Amino acid sequence: MSTPDFAAITTAAIDRMAEAPNARLRQILAVVLRHLHDAIRETRLTEAEWEAAIAFLTRTGQMCTAERQEFILLSDVLGVSMLVDALNHAAGDGVSESTVFGPFYAGRQPVLAAGASILKRPEEGTPLHMRGTVSTARGAPLAGALVEVWQTAPNGQYDVQDPQQPAGHLRASFETAADGSFAFATIVPVSYPIPDDGPVGALLEALGRHPNRPAHIHFMITAPGYRRLVTHLFIEGDPYLTSDAVFGVKQSLIVRPQAQADGSLGIDYAFTLADAPERHDE
Amino acid sequence: MSTPDFAAITTAAIDRMAEAPNARLRQILAVVLRHLHDAIRETRLTEAEWEAAIAFLTRTGQMCTAERQEFILLSDVLGVSMLVDALNHAAGDGVSESTVFGPFYAGRQPVLAAGASILKRPEEGTPLHMRGTVSTARGAPLAGALVEVWQTAPNGQYDVQDPQQPAGHLRASFETAADGSFAFATIVPVSYPIPDDGPVGALLEALGRHPNRPAHIHFMITAPGYRRLVTHLFIEGDPYLTSDAVFGVKQSLIVRPQAQADGSLGIDYAFTLADAPERHDE
Ligand SMILES: [Cu+2]
Ligand SMILES: [Fe+3]
Ligand SMILES: [Fe+3]
Repeated sequence: MSTPDFAAITTAAIDRMAEAPNARLRQILAVVLRHLHDAIRETRLTEAEWEAAIAFLTRTGQMCTAERQEFILLSDVLGVSMLVDALNHAAGDGVSESTVFGPFYAGRQPVLAAGASILKRPEEGTPLHMRGTVSTARGAPLAGALVEVWQTAPNGQYDVQDPQQPAGHLRASFETAADGSFAFATIVPVSYPIPDDGPVGALLEALGRHPNRPAHIHFMITAPGYRRLVTHLFIEGDPYLTSDAVFGVKQSLIVRPQAQADGSLGIDYAFTLADAPERHDE
Repeated sequence: MSTPDFAAITTAAIDRMAEAPNARLRQILAVVLRHLHDAIRETRLTEAEWEAAIAFLTRTGQMCTAERQEFILLSDVLGVSMLVDALNHAAGDGVSESTVFGPFYAGRQPVLAAGASILKRPEEGTPLHMRGTVSTARGAPLAGALVEVWQTAPNGQYDVQDPQQPAGHLRASFETAADGSFAFATIVPVSYPIPDDGPVGALLEALGRHPNRPAHIHFMITAPGYRRLVTHLFIEGDPYLTSDAVFGVKQSLIVRPQAQADGSLGIDYAFTLADAPERHDE
């Protein structure tokens, strides 16, 4: 009988893609397949473990709905989302750092007037005045940039997770003024657990990991001719800054709210966008 | 600004599992995570490609039902199932080779008398008499071994895929006699495409691969004290023997049906089971 030739299986599977019309797809699949086979050989995966992996992936896919993307959560908690972010958004000198998009963006919201509140109902949280500027990497202010923001309510849930919240609560769009400035009123964000009632939550528990993210406000800033910036601002002092469940924290994105004359807190932050690279596709 | 430290993300994600109570889970996840990150770095995966991968995995999970396991299909067409098989079933001298289990086993069927037909309705196919023996690696016949068999109808579909077929059509169980023999009547199997109306079929098409498997009969043979054997017998001359969509063909499993006196065809095959390894779990 032949001795099993593990490498031959991998070679056969890669060779079988030789006719793929899309060279990039062929390249990606060949690399993924090789590393996947390596991982299975290296762990000497048992059949029971393979079955458990199939069942886990199946549950993960079946947890996905229009409101819930469990595979993005999985990518997030495995550091994959931040790795893809890092590969595609080398910050470069003087450009704001990016972080995970997350699964809770809910589409473009109406543009509000400068300084408007993003609350659609009163909340118990500490009032916060956010004042920002958007400029180019060379320091020129960017007028008319679209600034989209979203955050959770004090219960740690986004409006899209919580039927009690009015739709669009704690999310809004703003346009920067001639001097690149924008401003809005909100509440200080809180830390919150990512949805942990599904397979990814079970995985975190099995791994002895907590599901929490440090308090943050999401920002997505777009301006024609510049690279879209997807990022957060985190709040200094949060207990989860060093153990964000999705590895999203970068030092330059941590801010310390300052006490205001009226007793509220204030954050000032200067966002800088990279020039858009020339794109030949998309 | 910090330059992105790709390796730091991987290290952070692996370190975060340090408290996992299950050492084997920690080991597997660390290896998988490292190879997954390597694959993403090596391909320099774009955000659009990452999104496409998330969407593909989501569609794959959502295709799964009680009757359809799309992640097993994916594992099969990527050679992963055969790699896991090879890792766990080093055949060893004088032991029958194994191959993929496949997604079409439908649970244990009633035991039929030696020589009985496994058809529940007449079919157009060429009549085939299958005669087998089951013995130990040392050549001792195994009496009372359970031989489970399943195959498609001439339309290339299993009963569980085809509402027109009676349940249990072309599947059955047999017990070996005192001399280790078993026998049944069936039809010569045909090659068939794996289910290709889902994400895995779309992937095969994008990769320029056909979805076909060479004609085969599935066997699962169990006997207390011996390793379960999951295998197929393939039919010599099939055009897909060298390009099985799931990489399941092994030379020792290819048989040539012999013409019988009555005009039917016959296959004789000697199966040999490995001794069961000592098991301390499961
Ligand atoms: Cu690897
Ligand atoms: Fe968030
Ligand atoms: Fe089959």
